[in-house]
Amino acid sequence: MTRAEAPFAYDGLDRVFHERARLGIVTSLAGRADGLGFSDLKALCGLTDGNLSRHLQVLEDAGFVTLDKGYDGKRPFTRCHLTETGRDRFAAYLDVLSDVLKKASRATAGSDTANLKVRPA
Amino acid sequence: MTRAEAPFAYDGLDRVFHERARLGIVTSLAGRADGLGFSDLKALCGLTDGNLSRHLQVLEDAGFVTLDKGYDGKRPFTRCHLTETGRDRFAAYLDVLSDVLKKASRATAGSDTANLKVRPA
Repeated sequence: MTRAEAPFAYDGLDRVFHERARLGIVTSLAGRADGLGFSDLKALCGLTDGNLSRHLQVLEDAGFVTLDKGYDGKRPFTRCHLTETGRDRFAAYLDVLSDVLKKASRATAGSDTANLKVRPA
Repeated sequence: MTRAEAPFAYDGLDRVFHERARLGIVTSLAGRADGLGFSDLKALCGLTDGNLSRHLQVLEDAGFVTLDKGYDGKRPFTRCHLTETGRDRFAAYLDVLSDVLKKASRATAGSDTANLKVRPA
């Protein structure tokens, strides 16, 4: 079935970004050309160590984030960056999300009933 | 941690709505005061029978959707409606989503770096 035939399929909503915690992580990183440290990111997103690690792994596996591990003095320190690919794909995701939001807002306003063939009540 | 302290926690993004298939289902239903039949909903959202059933169950359990089962002639027929609660909660979700989108768009434009204390690079 094509997207035109299933107008509410939302195939463009990349599941990697369309998850609450990851949306927060990526938004936090998007404005940071020099990246963010693990503990700053944890605080900004209100996540536990375990949850942040798990979601960063998903983002790294997708090629959207890089994790640079090193030391800050004697303490281990991880700096997280959004990759170019991650930035491009996130921008594309936001475009789709914007369309979804417009469609949903029209629907909740009760005006999105044109051109849809449905069985009468 | 309060929301103000974790600005990217997005606690208001209800997980019931913030899932790609359910977002399509609820948007489809939002514009339909008289609901939609199961097969119309399946076509609009590009879902299989199994997936649609599973997601409708999550929405029904949350009290956001009602499923009226009956017969269309001799064929079993299920009509799906958004409840008042579902409609109200979806409107609230869309408000949060709109804020998220604004924040993310600002961040990808590179201007969302004010007022955040971070460790220098």
